Amino acid sequence: MPPFKTTYRVSWVDTDAAQVVHFSNYFRIVERAEEEMYTQLGLSFNEIRQKYNFWLPRAEALCKFKAPAKFGDMLEVNLTIGEIMDKAVKYGFTIVNKKSEQLIAEGYVVIVVADKKSGHAINMPKELTEKLETYRNHGSHL
Amino acid sequence: MPPFKTTYRVSWVDTDAAQVVHFSNYFRIVERAEEEMYTQLGLSFNEIRQKYNFWLPRAEALCKFKAPAKFGDMLEVNLTIGEIMDKAVKYGFTIVNKKSEQLIAEGYVVIVVADKKSGHAINMPKELTEKLETYRNHGSHL
Amino acid sequence: MPPFKTTYRVSWVDTDAAQVVHFSNYFRIVERAEEEMYTQLGLSFNEIRQKYNFWLPRAEALCKFKAPAKFGDMLEVNLTIGEIMDKAVKYGFTIVNKKSEQLIAEGYVVIVVADKKSGHAINMPKELTEKLETYRNHGSHL
Amino acid sequence: MPPFKTTYRVSWVDTDAAQVVHFSNYFRIVERAEEEMYTQLGLSFNEIRQKYNFWLPRAEALCKFKAPAKFGDMLEVNLTIGEIMDKAVKYGFTIVNKKSEQLIAEGYVVIVVADKKSGHAINMPKELTEKLETYRNHGSHL
Repeated sequence: MPPFKTTYRVSWVDTDAAQVVHFSNYFRIVERAEEEMYTQLGLSFNEIRQKYNFWLPRAEALCKFKAPAKFGDMLEVNLTIGEIMDKAVKYGFTIVNKKSEQLIAEGYVVIVVADKKSGHAINMPKELTEKLETYRNHGSHL
Repeated sequence: MPPFKTTYRVSWVDTDAAQVVHFSNYFRIVERAEEEMYTQLGLSFNEIRQKYNFWLPRAEALCKFKAPAKFGDMLEVNLTIGEIMDKAVKYGFTIVNKKSEQLIAEGYVVIVVADKKSGHAINMPKELTEKLETYRNHGSHL
Repeated sequence: MPPFKTTYRVSWVDTDAAQVVHFSNYFRIVERAEEEMYTQLGLSFNEIRQKYNFWLPRAEALCKFKAPAKFGDMLEVNLTIGEIMDKAVKYGFTIVNKKSEQLIAEGYVVIVVADKKSGHAINMPKELTEKLETYRNHGSHL
Repeated sequence: MPPFKTTYRVSWVDTDAAQVVHFSNYFRIVERAEEEMYTQLGLSFNEIRQKYNFWLPRAEALCKFKAPAKFGDMLEVNLTIGEIMDKAVKYGFTIVNKKSEQLIAEGYVVIVVADKKSGHAINMPKELTEKLETYRNHGSHL
């Protein structure tokens, strides 16, 4: 399966005094791509969160910063679902400069489904995992 | 009355590609000072918000940016309570470079007390307004 | 002239514990719209900044927060050029919930052209002011 | 060697709609602690960066999010220098709730020394690595 793809234009506020995107912002750019993936899969997060009464906290996130991105750069963000576990999903990402095709950053994020009241991890609803299969890559080693 | 005073050290993430603090971050630095003022006044925001079931949204914020602040600069933030209305409070702020004494930014913020359920403005609890009198400046024209 | 219009989808990171967009983020959303306006006007900021060796710091920013925006909301951002002075430009903005058409926030931003070396305000290049006329509203009172 | 220790009070802007600190902000809290460590070690970053003409980009960052932190929480941030390589340093961190002593987050950051002009990794100045030995833990396995 091809990954989920979206784009992101680097804004001035994303940069720091080294005139490149601050490393913490790549995690935000990736999360925004994740949100767009849900929308594109027809998952309304506001509805699904109310229906099942959960949050989707992150359990782990890793990023390797390969090359800097600068103000105005158009980035391509690619998401691939790696593992779908009972209570967690691991997805990989790459961020690529759309013009130069240079790899900017890559890594993964592990999200869990947490009950809103107890905060404990609960089983992921089927309607969520079934949709996420769309972008699953069984051969990936994140 | 002298204003409430606190300090803030500029972090790398506060800067942008012009190598100065991004303008949006001054509003965050001022809000952090506001939080410290409540703590210093013995107001536990978590308790008070639960007790009265309100949020403290901002109704208006203005900032004039006078001089740039840079990474590592130690800033002094001064807050003065201007007007205390039934459902709102207006406070003024100045941000000064502690070393050079240069004025970096000044402005004001209007906060309202909003009922958590309805979202409507409600009367400010007395224990809040009484404490805020501590830093009130009757002669200020914000 | 109609204003410059763009849209912005509220991301999770834009929200705070009151489950609405943090007030400081409206300033960032407006700046992002400003960047898109330049791009749409054919102004490459990276080129123009290098050619004239300036920054575009903000001199003043005001926002009135009228109603909350929430995660996933699609916002419409409208920019109107108000005054074009020798060394500064004032533009007004409104942010509207695209679905409900509710006004979320409105205000203005004053930007100045500052020489990179001295930091002093300098005359705005004609190719910049001429382009900005596109979205000028002579009747506006910001 | 004991780790470098500092504290950080969670601000309203650090939280998101789940009423906990947004995961990307832990990376910022850790970077702020790193900056305080340099200051405490007598390293003026503005001076050292000018003298050697380098940036300190991050090459990799990992964080495991163990428990949520909330508005007003006082966090303790602990940094331990793990490996000091020719052109890079890896440090580990833990973030702990100061009151409950609960582990909030842990992970590591790899920083490299990059020449400002070329962007390439260069050898770390001795005055930097010597200072960092202060918080080195030879037995750590990050």
